[in-house]
Amino acid sequence: MYLHVQRLINDIVADEPDPAAANALQEGLGGQFGEMRTMMQYLFQSINFRGPAGKPYRDLLQGIGTEEISHVELIGTTIARLLDGSPRYNGKKTDPLDTPGAGGRTPLDLALGVGNIHHYLVAAQGALPVDAAGNPWSGSYVYNSGNLVLDLLYNLMLESTGRLQKCRIYEMTDNKTARSTISYLIVRDQAHENAYAKALETLGVDWGKVLPIPTTNAEKFPEVKKLVDLGLQSKQYTFDLEGASEAGRIFQGTSPSNDGTELDATEQAPAGVPSTIARERYEEFSPGLDPDLLALIQATADLEMADAADPLFAPTRNA
Amino acid sequence: MYLHVQRLINDIVADEPDPAAANALQEGLGGQFGEMRTMMQYLFQSINFRGPAGKPYRDLLQGIGTEEISHVELIGTTIARLLDGSPRYNGKKTDPLDTPGAGGRTPLDLALGVGNIHHYLVAAQGALPVDAAGNPWSGSYVYNSGNLVLDLLYNLMLESTGRLQKCRIYEMTDNKTARSTISYLIVRDQAHENAYAKALETLGVDWGKVLPIPTTNAEKFPEVKKLVDLGLQSKQYTFDLEGASEAGRIFQGTSPSNDGTELDATEQAPAGVPSTIARERYEEFSPGLDPDLLALIQATADLEMADAADPLFAPTRNA
Amino acid sequence: MYLHVQRLINDIVADEPDPAAANALQEGLGGQFGEMRTMMQYLFQSINFRGPAGKPYRDLLQGIGTEEISHVELIGTTIARLLDGSPRYNGKKTDPLDTPGAGGRTPLDLALGVGNIHHYLVAAQGALPVDAAGNPWSGSYVYNSGNLVLDLLYNLMLESTGRLQKCRIYEMTDNKTARSTISYLIVRDQAHENAYAKALETLGVDWGKVLPIPTTNAEKFPEVKKLVDLGLQSKQYTFDLEGASEAGRIFQGTSPSNDGTELDATEQAPAGVPSTIARERYEEFSPGLDPDLLALIQATADLEMADAADPLFAPTRNA
Amino acid sequence: MYLHVQRLINDIVADEPDPAAANALQEGLGGQFGEMRTMMQYLFQSINFRGPAGKPYRDLLQGIGTEEISHVELIGTTIARLLDGSPRYNGKKTDPLDTPGAGGRTPLDLALGVGNIHHYLVAAQGALPVDAAGNPWSGSYVYNSGNLVLDLLYNLMLESTGRLQKCRIYEMTDNKTARSTISYLIVRDQAHENAYAKALETLGVDWGKVLPIPTTNAEKFPEVKKLVDLGLQSKQYTFDLEGASEAGRIFQGTSPSNDGTELDATEQAPAGVPSTIARERYEEFSPGLDPDLLALIQATADLEMADAADPLFAPTRNA
Amino acid sequence: MYLHVQRLINDIVADEPDPAAANALQEGLGGQFGEMRTMMQYLFQSINFRGPAGKPYRDLLQGIGTEEISHVELIGTTIARLLDGSPRYNGKKTDPLDTPGAGGRTPLDLALGVGNIHHYLVAAQGALPVDAAGNPWSGSYVYNSGNLVLDLLYNLMLESTGRLQKCRIYEMTDNKTARSTISYLIVRDQAHENAYAKALETLGVDWGKVLPIPTTNAEKFPEVKKLVDLGLQSKQYTFDLEGASEAGRIFQGTSPSNDGTELDATEQAPAGVPSTIARERYEEFSPGLDPDLLALIQATADLEMADAADPLFAPTRNA
Amino acid sequence: MYLHVQRLINDIVADEPDPAAANALQEGLGGQFGEMRTMMQYLFQSINFRGPAGKPYRDLLQGIGTEEISHVELIGTTIARLLDGSPRYNGKKTDPLDTPGAGGRTPLDLALGVGNIHHYLVAAQGALPVDAAGNPWSGSYVYNSGNLVLDLLYNLMLESTGRLQKCRIYEMTDNKTARSTISYLIVRDQAHENAYAKALETLGVDWGKVLPIPTTNAEKFPEVKKLVDLGLQSKQYTFDLEGASEAGRIFQGTSPSNDGTELDATEQAPAGVPSTIARERYEEFSPGLDPDLLALIQATADLEMADAADPLFAPTRNA
Repeated sequence: MYLHVQRLINDIVADEPDPAAANALQEGLGGQFGEMRTMMQYLFQSINFRGPAGKPYRDLLQGIGTEEISHVELIGTTIARLLDGSPRYNGKKTDPLDTPGAGGRTPLDLALGVGNIHHYLVAAQGALPVDAAGNPWSGSYVYNSGNLVLDLLYNLMLESTGRLQKCRIYEMTDNKTARSTISYLIVRDQAHENAYAKALETLGVDWGKVLPIPTTNAEKFPEVKKLVDLGLQSKQYTFDLEGASEAGRIFQGTSPSNDGTELDATEQAPAGVPSTIARERYEEFSPGLDPDLLALIQATADLEMADAADPLFAPTRNA
Repeated sequence: MYLHVQRLINDIVADEPDPAAANALQEGLGGQFGEMRTMMQYLFQSINFRGPAGKPYRDLLQGIGTEEISHVELIGTTIARLLDGSPRYNGKKTDPLDTPGAGGRTPLDLALGVGNIHHYLVAAQGALPVDAAGNPWSGSYVYNSGNLVLDLLYNLMLESTGRLQKCRIYEMTDNKTARSTISYLIVRDQAHENAYAKALETLGVDWGKVLPIPTTNAEKFPEVKKLVDLGLQSKQYTFDLEGASEAGRIFQGTSPSNDGTELDATEQAPAGVPSTIARERYEEFSPGLDPDLLALIQATADLEMADAADPLFAPTRNA
Repeated sequence: MYLHVQRLINDIVADEPDPAAANALQEGLGGQFGEMRTMMQYLFQSINFRGPAGKPYRDLLQGIGTEEISHVELIGTTIARLLDGSPRYNGKKTDPLDTPGAGGRTPLDLALGVGNIHHYLVAAQGALPVDAAGNPWSGSYVYNSGNLVLDLLYNLMLESTGRLQKCRIYEMTDNKTARSTISYLIVRDQAHENAYAKALETLGVDWGKVLPIPTTNAEKFPEVKKLVDLGLQSKQYTFDLEGASEAGRIFQGTSPSNDGTELDATEQAPAGVPSTIARERYEEFSPGLDPDLLALIQATADLEMADAADPLFAPTRNA
Repeated sequence: MYLHVQRLINDIVADEPDPAAANALQEGLGGQFGEMRTMMQYLFQSINFRGPAGKPYRDLLQGIGTEEISHVELIGTTIARLLDGSPRYNGKKTDPLDTPGAGGRTPLDLALGVGNIHHYLVAAQGALPVDAAGNPWSGSYVYNSGNLVLDLLYNLMLESTGRLQKCRIYEMTDNKTARSTISYLIVRDQAHENAYAKALETLGVDWGKVLPIPTTNAEKFPEVKKLVDLGLQSKQYTFDLEGASEAGRIFQGTSPSNDGTELDATEQAPAGVPSTIARERYEEFSPGLDPDLLALIQATADLEMADAADPLFAPTRNA
Repeated sequence: MYLHVQRLINDIVADEPDPAAANALQEGLGGQFGEMRTMMQYLFQSINFRGPAGKPYRDLLQGIGTEEISHVELIGTTIARLLDGSPRYNGKKTDPLDTPGAGGRTPLDLALGVGNIHHYLVAAQGALPVDAAGNPWSGSYVYNSGNLVLDLLYNLMLESTGRLQKCRIYEMTDNKTARSTISYLIVRDQAHENAYAKALETLGVDWGKVLPIPTTNAEKFPEVKKLVDLGLQSKQYTFDLEGASEAGRIFQGTSPSNDGTELDATEQAPAGVPSTIARERYEEFSPGLDPDLLALIQATADLEMADAADPLFAPTRNA
Repeated sequence: MYLHVQRLINDIVADEPDPAAANALQEGLGGQFGEMRTMMQYLFQSINFRGPAGKPYRDLLQGIGTEEISHVELIGTTIARLLDGSPRYNGKKTDPLDTPGAGGRTPLDLALGVGNIHHYLVAAQGALPVDAAGNPWSGSYVYNSGNLVLDLLYNLMLESTGRLQKCRIYEMTDNKTARSTISYLIVRDQAHENAYAKALETLGVDWGKVLPIPTTNAEKFPEVKKLVDLGLQSKQYTFDLEGASEAGRIFQGTSPSNDGTELDATEQAPAGVPSTIARERYEEFSPGLDPDLLALIQATADLEMADAADPLFAPTRNA
């Protein structure tokens, strides 16, 4: 059973909207080696796990799988922010709906030029469950052979490939919003890579110096280096509310990444940062609640809840 | 951010293995109107939500979305149990690997006859992210228009269709393992249907007597009736660890299902039941840890952790 | 622009329900070489057609394309009839909803054994836009190269392949409902094959004796032979309400099928037979209007239309 | 059974070619909420409809479904026109086939830069059965639960989503060709939205003020406003050649769109405008009939039809 | 550049037709971990390979990739043989086309009951490029990260998973035709697993005792054991006609499979066995050349080649 | 059984990198009418071929199918070269990894603007098994009806469509690398078109003057004309190492392309040109062997093979 808190697992740095960067990040969300994939793969591997004696391995899978749900939330929110920007708010135009033939710029015409037109046409400037080339996420991505060694080997390759692709995305954009999340995920992918490599070490494999994959360069990225200096690549949270996880029996000892750190699985979860709700986008005809609708609700609320102590739409923590 | 406990959200009644029933239940897991769909759809709707004034609606989506993760876990585990059964354990044969030409029954030949052969050939008698006809789950299922009224309308239709299909699955099998989970989900789908119907009521819609959909018959199913008598169709948990959810501002008052109950969103989460780890399946070459591997690990552990206070494979709670 | 009449293009012979035959017929509806494919392919070829001088070819495509819509209707209805049958109506059981543990047969358990479980679980004993292996119809099937010779060559191959597959379906079942529609479509596919072969003849190709494809045997099927004796394979309707079609400039002269007949495109449309509406299926929770709903509507109608001269649910021609 | 006339259901305003706009319109043709979807969904719902007492609902579905075929034709033709334009005709170059290394502009190089390269590489500057992100249309889009209330609810959501997306497309381009068709379809989508909303009203639902969806703004689009002023959003044609449709029993009374109009289903079909055939595109190697081929056909025709009274390629109404 | 000889890479043992086994083998042909996948993956990895210094690794990939083409040929032919069987040849009926209503068995009705109906309806009792659940092979399966370590790791996992699934197929059927090919491929998969494991050893990884995967049991299969005793799991052919391959620099030394053998890459290719052409299947309307067609060709040949020294259809080596 | 030589079937002319052209060429590799399709289709048609008397037809299919493998290799290599180019090698920047905020150009940002972002994000500047719109290659493309006439007709249409699309690609770019391969494939497609047309001639079809398709213009392309002047469109290689092919019984006599040439199938294979291995791309984190890894391997090699006569990484023919 799963629970949640209204926080993001890591902070997102503010910067300009950037639809092209948003589209590149979709690979990290809905791509074959993105966060939806890792989340679902580890969830299925946990559900179908066999052999009570292997509980530490099951718990490792389940803990990482739980973290991936928060990664889906983090990168999805990052994409939505990168897409967020419109004439009404940016002051480029006063009238959001142009008059044909009068030379006005059409409000959503940027959708025709970069990235995935579905971000504007279908998703109202929000994240989509697709990859950077627009392919919908597919259940056929999930690998769960039932053989523990193979599943661990696949997961190690999966995390390394995810990290490889994120290093490439880092090189595609210098937008700070994009890079703050990409850098965080590069480091966490390495932590998960360490987890599966260590699990295979307990079964007798010696990785020599091939880890991490890619072996070089990522630490030259300043945002990544900052997190590596904090040791975030050698830490795994349990995300277990009752302390039942035995993942720490595996995730301990020297890191297989050859960086001299010790693996640590003693924390339950990071502190996170408060999540907020984005503003309306009237040009998408998709406000959360547009002025007319809000007035309508208030009127309804006045009627229906005249005697309620707690008004329906009092100022919320997001207002 | 998400956390978990090592419990299932509802108990699964024990019965015989039943691969055909397992396959039918796949629709409820990986089908267009199954739990993976609802989980992902509400997760994306929460992430992309716009308009701080609509926080109660966002929190409703997020709370139901969190519950759906546990439903994925529940129905996935149910499918795995329905598939669980093999010659070695059932005593039908002493030698799990037959001798060609000697007339022995091949251990996995039942895979050729019923349901989805991938349950045996690919998934090692475990659940798959596919529907009952074998189609992989697709990201193109997720609906998130950005328009609140449309999203609520879609969600109402989605929960009702899910409930409709589960009523049909109920009529396809009398296996108790299958029916215990299907019945629970029928009732929870109705709770979610009530949630979205109520949200639309706050926007001015009057449903008359069309709810719930389907309007009749489900309460004639004994297992369903038992849960309806407990009022489970009129309860929504927040699954929020810090009490920040405002979903209760919507999920309150008379049920739109015309059953005379009051909606209640005051509980954080159900108690759940402890989850267990399934036994090995040697005929799938997919033990969690087969005897040889276990011996290997122990030998490794003896070497590596000779001085560790906490042995790697002490008896676990699942042992 | 398209219009319709409430008739089927050909009669469907009554016989027992047969879900396995229904599934085989799905190939003719939603398969790569089925009626949805031909309908869409010719519709796109008509829309994108270039060159005013080629109007007779465009009109030929448009006329056949229009006929294919009626073929989709015909084979879809045939599939729905083959799936139609349930305990309540067949008298096998008095109570459609069994009592678990009491040994009753579950109403929909036949869905687990033959054909496509989605026919019962998703489609309420109706036709689906999928092929006989359950693959959804795909827009990638549509071929429209823009090159007239290639399009005609493809269409000839398409009709012949459709006819080939239907000959195989004929050999898979002796259900009269299935065979009456399959036989009609075998003959009409040959008519369309003749149309495209003749169009290529006007461009200089001489087919020798290779047509029709397959060259042999189909006339040994009694139902097919009856229609061939009527010359239905050498007739093409215009389906054009205003007599503007010039398809007759191509579809004339000796048949390329080497059967000695003359091609004839002088008729607008066949007479067809009245279509009817199927009965309710309560075990699917999917009546058109179940008794409760019907009562509800009538009550509403009484209120809303007390002064209307024409009552909402007077006996209809289908009642 | 279906018939046709050689007319488009609405006129298309002339403007410059615009491949980016053409690609955006593909969502309205082959997208999940586009015209191919509505056409197929209502066709299947009509075929699989159950319950003779519900004939007015079946007839409503069938009438709207028939209209959607004409919408596919309209938007497909619009896309083809937006793609129509090449060096040979636009006078930009005298030689359509450039000499490599001589600095000439390659005739189709615009295909590499905007929209969907398949429009030039595969479709010869014609419409494709795909969405604006290039995904082929899929049979898995079609929803037909068998439950009347759910089907109507889904259809209402479907039409509203289609209208929402078309409002966004309107904001992406000011090309008059694109906007003339988009505006017409926005208004017709609203008419269909009204139809399904009214059908649910007959079952007891009161929509309050939530309709139409999106509730605001579309009427600020000048081309849309013109059609709304004519009341086109409150009219539904039967497209029934024999007057058998009972859809008017539902589509009558006050519009659920809160615009004060009365619904009207008394007309058979709109007048439409004559359709024409597009010119050749030699740079695509895909003329309908290029000069060589035309000469060939004429020679053949001279031989084969020396004694025919009606010459094969007399001037046609499109010439 | 590739060349071929008209031989199969391994012999196929004769046995009864078995459509259910044929369908299971489709996973080994068109499944995610089947021979089409390995063939394409290694072909792409060879094409896109970077770094001249890594030529031994490129040559290893190219050699195994070439072998996989022959594996596709082998397993495809095996499936076709398992599907081969019809009334005409088996003497069950004298008339291949039954008379409806006369009680005759329909020639292809077995297609409705087991495996994939497309084997009969679409493929004329031949192999299909799909998996055992009917999913078409997809280009999205191909993994080629560009990072050598990751590609080798993936390939190791891929071969092991293929071998795991083939071990399960072995347990599903005791048909000798099926088992002869499956056993051969189990052993060759292990050879390829050894190749990638050894390549990773050259980069510093020590596999301990985890290889081969699955670690146990396969040698208990008699047909597999026979080939293992011949050392076929430790041999890799170059398939290189000019001796340019440097794969032997990697594939040498002790086997990573812990079986005490030495790896050997000195042979160019196995001898293979002559391939033959299957007999006609008249009930599929798909003879290679049916009697009528053959007569037609001969007549044509007589005319066209009256003076040719070499007659067109002299007895061939397959006759 | 298949073998290979380390040569490309045709030379690739050097020119600048051009990612947009690379993407257009993907249609020729992974598109519905590209080389992967023809390769797989003819391979399956060879495997499933029926009727020993038709061996010349089988051998024709097998020979062309073998050539297509080399075409996949050729066009894949061409795409990889068109994508090959990065800041490090082109001297645009000294530091391949930029400093955020310092205004440096991000190394891979060109991936965001043209063609398919997956070429950089997933494939490390290499070819992908997808078409020019990014759709993965699908097994559903393969056509193999089992009926010889239909298969030949389809193959004729397939080759002609491939040639048509390549003519369009030629018109999209004047990059010499792209055009050298496209021109070669245009001519070879015509050779295959001739092969299938001739095979149908042996069955009695007379093509008149419709071949080749498209009938005009391609010979106006200078690179194409040069190859046509050499007669490459009238030559078919057997690719058969043992001279067993009987394809020459069909591929002989006057060309159906009306160009006055004689068909010739007497050669085994073209000479080809030596293939080379591309250089590393460090900005992709995907060198074949980066400096660190190379040093590691050498160190390992020194240890493991101190006494080996043949050093692991002696200079290779590609160095």
